[in-house]
Amino acid sequence: RSGAVRAAITEALADGTSLKIDDDRKHAAGVALVGGGPGDADLITVRGRKLLAEADVVVADRLAPVALLEELRPQVEIIDAAKVPYGRAMRQEQINEILVDRARAGKFVVRLKGGDPYVYGRGFEELQACVDAGVPVVVVPGISSPIAGPELAGIPVTHRGVTHEVVIVSGHVGPDHPDSLTNWEALAQMRGTIVIMMAVKRIDEFATALLAGGRPGDTPVAFIENASRPDQRLLRTDLAHAGQTAVDQQLIAPAIAVIGPVAGFTDADRALGF
Amino acid sequence: RSGAVRAAITEALADGTSLKIDDDRKHAAGVALVGGGPGDADLITVRGRKLLAEADVVVADRLAPVALLEELRPQVEIIDAAKVPYGRAMRQEQINEILVDRARAGKFVVRLKGGDPYVYGRGFEELQACVDAGVPVVVVPGISSPIAGPELAGIPVTHRGVTHEVVIVSGHVGPDHPDSLTNWEALAQMRGTIVIMMAVKRIDEFATALLAGGRPGDTPVAFIENASRPDQRLLRTDLAHAGQTAVDQQLIAPAIAVIGPVAGFTDADRALGF
Repeated sequence: RSGAVRAAITEALADGTSLKIDDDRKHAAGVALVGGGPGDADLITVRGRKLLAEADVVVADRLAPVALLEELRPQVEIIDAAKVPYGRAMRQEQINEILVDRARAGKFVVRLKGGDPYVYGRGFEELQACVDAGVPVVVVPGISSPIAGPELAGIPVTHRGVTHEVVIVSGHVGPDHPDSLTNWEALAQMRGTIVIMMAVKRIDEFATALLAGGRPGDTPVAFIENASRPDQRLLRTDLAHAGQTAVDQQLIAPAIAVIGPVAGFTDADRALGF
Repeated sequence: RSGAVRAAITEALADGTSLKIDDDRKHAAGVALVGGGPGDADLITVRGRKLLAEADVVVADRLAPVALLEELRPQVEIIDAAKVPYGRAMRQEQINEILVDRARAGKFVVRLKGGDPYVYGRGFEELQACVDAGVPVVVVPGISSPIAGPELAGIPVTHRGVTHEVVIVSGHVGPDHPDSLTNWEALAQMRGTIVIMMAVKRIDEFATALLAGGRPGDTPVAFIENASRPDQRLLRTDLAHAGQTAVDQQLIAPAIAVIGPVAGFTDADRALGF
């Protein structure tokens, strides 16, 4: 199998550009899918930071820690993934193509993503594209927002004696949408923490589904808007009033909803910090 | 209770080292609860790494990235949390007291934990102890093993069109144990990814509970032993054979179990890496 992959690479690189050597390039050609964390520049990992410093090309998401881009060497090519034009293919396919093409041209490409590449980040799709193309690829985990967003707002997703499980669920389609892959009736019967990502638009639908499935109306709920950013906002309510609170307080995206007893913990509000 | 704990600690620390003042201390007194990530030294965050370099005292878990301790200045006091003696109070209370006492003695204390402080890390208990004592405290998220462990072994916990949710659940008590806080019948009805932490001892009980609740026997299962460490091991099986595989392959702790379609993804096995 290794021989077949190598043959595919040789064929793929037959245009000759792969032989171009950059004198200041420190890293072999390929792609690193790097989790940038929730937004703060120093919440990237040390490994991610090192790879970024060695990049020839950086393809960055809008939710990636963009402050890190300012520190890059001037010759680094920076591509805003949100501005990649739609063509005959969807944007994700275009991004995949950019990663593969640049790597085949001999570049070391860092795909800088918000959060973690494998938590609603489409990172595995990008890995698959690289693997299919025979392009070397590594993945560097990132601080994941469904855990760190609540954490930075003072809410632990687990707590001994209170909750031993946390469900991270996408809010990008409603509970009754045909594309929904989540069993919200079963989810309503879980007793621990639920973290809904991309929660703003349909929070009323999700709260209604959880209430209908048996989760009590007085279950604490916390919204974290712009987690880890200077304009972070924490709102507290309960499940019966979650939809109304989001409307009244004009909750905006990106926001995370935390549902469960831990959402009512306020000890960290009294932390003095540094 | 607090007085008794303090007496026990005073006794334990009677050698006087806690009163030593370092002239080169850079940071105000207080406690930083720092997530060290899954084990690899460069999977800590940049922020965590910086705070560690400024610490007067480091209280480290056995699952924290211990390689980082070797880089500390010689005058830094390093306390192995696993070796804190049980006294009249439980070990966690003793650790809480050490954090508070050192901070009150003017030290900047880094509590270095494996993974993330709030994912089965008892981090919030330590925060509560600091808040109750009026000691300044901050939390720095860490790369969390239930996401990064599978990730580093080639398994994404979410994947578009396949699973839009991931349940992270503790395996420290069985499904029928009176201390269990998880509704395993409901969990069995979820369709996405389940990640069981501390999964080794009771994997047969959990698999049995999920099968009894309706999860199909051919659901892919992956075990990741010693995630992110040089001796990491990935085992693949299915839900019907999970318990037997763990026995046959002599699965040892610490290990993570991933259950769901993503556990069958093998594309990353073909990634060439760097």
